[in-house]
Amino acid sequence: MMVREAEFGGAAPLICVPLVAGDTAHLLQQAAFAHSVSPDVVEWRADSYDRLSSDSVAGIASAVRGVLPREALIFTLRAEGEGGARALAQPLRGEIIRAAIESGQVDIVDLELANGPGFVLPMIRLAHGQGVRVILSFHDFQSTPDSGALLATISEMVRQGADIAKIACMPRHPGDVLRLLDLTLTARRMFPAVPLCTMAIGGLGVLTRVAGFLFGSDMSFAVGQTASAPGQIPIAELRAAIDLLDRYA
Amino acid sequence: MMVREAEFGGAAPLICVPLVAGDTAHLLQQAAFAHSVSPDVVEWRADSYDRLSSDSVAGIASAVRGVLPREALIFTLRAEGEGGARALAQPLRGEIIRAAIESGQVDIVDLELANGPGFVLPMIRLAHGQGVRVILSFHDFQSTPDSGALLATISEMVRQGADIAKIACMPRHPGDVLRLLDLTLTARRMFPAVPLCTMAIGGLGVLTRVAGFLFGSDMSFAVGQTASAPGQIPIAELRAAIDLLDRYA
Repeated sequence: MMVREAEFGGAAPLICVPLVAGDTAHLLQQAAFAHSVSPDVVEWRADSYDRLSSDSVAGIASAVRGVLPREALIFTLRAEGEGGARALAQPLRGEIIRAAIESGQVDIVDLELANGPGFVLPMIRLAHGQGVRVILSFHDFQSTPDSGALLATISEMVRQGADIAKIACMPRHPGDVLRLLDLTLTARRMFPAVPLCTMAIGGLGVLTRVAGFLFGSDMSFAVGQTASAPGQIPIAELRAAIDLLDRYA
Repeated sequence: MMVREAEFGGAAPLICVPLVAGDTAHLLQQAAFAHSVSPDVVEWRADSYDRLSSDSVAGIASAVRGVLPREALIFTLRAEGEGGARALAQPLRGEIIRAAIESGQVDIVDLELANGPGFVLPMIRLAHGQGVRVILSFHDFQSTPDSGALLATISEMVRQGADIAKIACMPRHPGDVLRLLDLTLTARRMFPAVPLCTMAIGGLGVLTRVAGFLFGSDMSFAVGQTASAPGQIPIAELRAAIDLLDRYA
């Protein structure tokens, strides 16, 4: 699946850099830095932005797009309980996400599955109508649920119409890291046509950011200037490690 | 367990460079190169050496030791069926290994468990009497046996008196790589006092050379000038990748 120049589900894993900024000046400065290190994908973590509104989001997205002409751009506005940076009531959050989708400036929108089908399904219809792809995502910042539950979650994402399924969990011990990679392998076989983005977060999980692609994960997050989740490593180091494994594997 | 300056079972994984040479001139040149890249351990793969005898081995080992004053030195003389470079009848092979142990020049001897207890047990007694540590090793160059069989193999190594247990298997698919790492984690818990050296060989297995230490493997093999097994990568790249994972994990 091509999104601009980024091939999701292609031979090489994509590298995504998040933008985590409170105002437009910092956002554009981070975007310019991200552009300079050539990621495949950039995620605007709009929940970091101070006083974002459904009126202002299109203009800001357009400014970001101006700095990132070739990168696939993800728009993400997580609720606080999903790891988002700020509390936003769901009606307002929904309005902003709709405005971002309708802006024509973003390629992909990330929606947390936990919002429920009443929120997610109309948003997917809107996005697909606008030619915007949808990541459905699941985060657990405390632990790694059992593999059956995670597979059921991915199945549900696919059933609801996800273009890309994303799973991020906290490992409690090294066995959880292996289990996350093994789950990725299983999901890749079960849903060969759906790009996956899986990771174990935190220090223990760094291995999955580097090696997830060997087991079927199509995208890995790296730090441009500011990390958006624990365990993200600088893009140059991530790229070198992926290249090493890819060269020999 | 300290062997010269190398701590087996310590916090950081050890890096071992093999010497694979047909004559003394090449052997010493490889040893000098190995010394220059500062591995923790060097393995003399004596089965690569042309016309080695029980009379000549001590002198050659002494010359190698002269070039490698601080590195832990492993002596390995594999039979052809164990991945060795040359055919050597077992009586002759046994004589050479005994002479190497008695030379006082090597720190560790690697013995394939498949030689059987009639060969292995007296050799372990001889080694321990001389202050030489013993790696008992298992290789499968075709596949990765099931995890129960591999755990039983490690148990048998420990029972026979191994100071270090080594397992090297060929993965047929990415799931075998995860299984080898998971086996390492289990063996580490079952035998907390026995250093382990585990790896999946070949291109698919490169991940285990880089990340095995996260799951309990204490030593990884890297290329100095010449690889001794498929999937070994240059020491500088291995060290950089290990450092990356170690820094964040």
